[in-house]
Amino acid sequence: MYPNILRHPGPTPIPKKVELAMTQDMISHRTVEFVNLYQEVTQNVKAFFGTKQDILLLPSGGTAALEAAVVNTVSPGEEVVVISVGAFGDYFISICERYGLHVHKLAKNWGEACTKEDLIEFLKPLSNIKAVFATYNETSTGILNPIEQLAEVVRNHSDAIFIVDGVSGIGGVPAEMDQWGIDILVTGSQKAMMLPPGLALLAVSERAWKVIEANHSTAYYLNLLSYREWAAKGMTPNTPAISLIKGLSAVCDLVEEEGGISKTVERHEVMKNMVREAMRALSIELLTSDKYASPTVTAIRTPEGLDLTAFLGHLKKKYHLDFAGGLGHLQGEIFRFGHMGYCFPSDILQSVSLMEAGLQDLSYQFEPGAGVKAAQDVFLSSLRK
Amino acid sequence: MYPNILRHPGPTPIPKKVELAMTQDMISHRTVEFVNLYQEVTQNVKAFFGTKQDILLLPSGGTAALEAAVVNTVSPGEEVVVISVGAFGDYFISICERYGLHVHKLAKNWGEACTKEDLIEFLKPLSNIKAVFATYNETSTGILNPIEQLAEVVRNHSDAIFIVDGVSGIGGVPAEMDQWGIDILVTGSQKAMMLPPGLALLAVSERAWKVIEANHSTAYYLNLLSYREWAAKGMTPNTPAISLIKGLSAVCDLVEEEGGISKTVERHEVMKNMVREAMRALSIELLTSDKYASPTVTAIRTPEGLDLTAFLGHLKKKYHLDFAGGLGHLQGEIFRFGHMGYCFPSDILQSVSLMEAGLQDLSYQFEPGAGVKAAQDVFLSSLRK
Repeated sequence: MYPNILRHPGPTPIPKKVELAMTQDMISHRTVEFVNLYQEVTQNVKAFFGTKQDILLLPSGGTAALEAAVVNTVSPGEEVVVISVGAFGDYFISICERYGLHVHKLAKNWGEACTKEDLIEFLKPLSNIKAVFATYNETSTGILNPIEQLAEVVRNHSDAIFIVDGVSGIGGVPAEMDQWGIDILVTGSQKAMMLPPGLALLAVSERAWKVIEANHSTAYYLNLLSYREWAAKGMTPNTPAISLIKGLSAVCDLVEEEGGISKTVERHEVMKNMVREAMRALSIELLTSDKYASPTVTAIRTPEGLDLTAFLGHLKKKYHLDFAGGLGHLQGEIFRFGHMGYCFPSDILQSVSLMEAGLQDLSYQFEPGAGVKAAQDVFLSSLRK
Repeated sequence: MYPNILRHPGPTPIPKKVELAMTQDMISHRTVEFVNLYQEVTQNVKAFFGTKQDILLLPSGGTAALEAAVVNTVSPGEEVVVISVGAFGDYFISICERYGLHVHKLAKNWGEACTKEDLIEFLKPLSNIKAVFATYNETSTGILNPIEQLAEVVRNHSDAIFIVDGVSGIGGVPAEMDQWGIDILVTGSQKAMMLPPGLALLAVSERAWKVIEANHSTAYYLNLLSYREWAAKGMTPNTPAISLIKGLSAVCDLVEEEGGISKTVERHEVMKNMVREAMRALSIELLTSDKYASPTVTAIRTPEGLDLTAFLGHLKKKYHLDFAGGLGHLQGEIFRFGHMGYCFPSDILQSVSLMEAGLQDLSYQFEPGAGVKAAQDVFLSSLRK
């Protein structure tokens, strides 16, 4: 009966228009209808990536697309740098290690970003790097790495290609893949893209295509050359996630309705600030500094004196407000407030209000209403701009 | 406005109940709700496979699950046998070759099945086979290989594991994986499973798990050990295709409503016979013999004197009846009438009627109504049983 108020950093709520698009009559993927759909969608979604390159659509989770970025570009024994600022950076390391790459790990404490200076310093002694991997938006800590600056550092250092995990970012954060010099940018459907899980989106620079052409991967399902070959005909090598692609078409329409992707990105910025100011007003600590704070997810420390599991369980049970816990060693230390995709300032006001209600139930000491007021102030001031 | 009458051998129409299940509120995959859903669904779908083994759910197309069956069990240089009776058998060969396996190809003419005798003869000189791969239901030709008998031959020959592509079969054909001795059975969501594309289902025998445990695959996304490990907790290693899994739960309910999977399989048998008798009554040739005819898709030769592209185009344009063409060298020679999943005898009557209408438009010589009458006879006789 009660709707689940899903404030996870993915999967995220699905807009009704997207649901309806996904439940239109099924079509075959070897028809003119599909080709038209494919061509329209892959054209419209380019703005999300800031690229003129083709967007490839893989019927898979984001993980598979990250793996595709690895196996199609580098070979066992080759040297790569992986920047990790949290669980999903570590995930990238796991994939690279599984494939026998020589991984140089640039790891930061969870809750910190990798700065330009960090990367310059780290690359100095390294001379034979084939690829640098980075997470743009680290879902486990709510960090947005300064990816434009990191791209510049990679460019200045060597011919290494720069591969970026944009999962949980793309659709809600600025992205200028071509201008910044990102070589492969990957995202998944179930985060800021407002879709159910099961579709991965990936774009490849001209430079990276040359690397991929010279590579001898045995991957079959994740073979990017095969995707490129079929994309030229408006199709995919095997059965695509047809309903998700129909949904993606509706997502592009919705973003267009909002005024284009830059407006959608602005909304995320406002929501981020609303959440951060609300927490400050409630004297609840944030994990990250404002400078590198993610526009799509905020990591929040356990309110003082509360047991986190009990607090989150209470919010879920009594108010149907569904936050995500911490990952890895941050389990029990932080919770994550997702504010991406089909989420609006009004949703933030609602979630903060319900959170305040839960805090009162558990006798946390604060001025009731202070969090909501702080969020409102941010929202109203954004409207006046 | 006009509904598309999708009679392809996948993707296939989606039942309304399944669509509605897929558009329920999104949930996180790291919650008790998901664990309950996962455990219920993977239990209920076992009957489709005829197995007591866990059913693993991969967020991917069937191709990825076929690749998973390859990369998790055999290593480059090892000898395997691939039985190919059509395009999807050849697909299996491509995957095996891509991974550097030593492939012994047992190829039959397109439209023929691989018999027990064929396989006995083929295996005789081979002594070091690690795995035998076969397609159960060959979508390109409408052949149902005698998989139970082939499994027996493999068992009697050696310790090779028997890996079966059940895509386009499972859900509409008999399957007794455990009893027959199949080691890995794979299917995809978009065929007889009544779901959109994007979910692969896979079951593994105890014997095959031992082989997988001893294997050293570098695959990350397709690592079956990792799926097994998470399945024990009612979860998946990365974000699963949550809406498709909700849909699968509804599919299991629908099959239960029909009286269980054996009743669903019987319906497919009836539809197969309806289509075959209808074509005979119209003097249109079938590609395959009755003995090995697929219950889910029928390959039909171009009606004499007609241009196939023009005929299919006409049916699609005027009557919204959407058949699939032939693949490979059968392009232009045959078309494929899909009758699987959410398809009923009433749909066969409708499709045959519309096909007759199209044949009249194109001045094909036949007795109007003869096809429909033949299909009706099969249907009515099935009801009297």
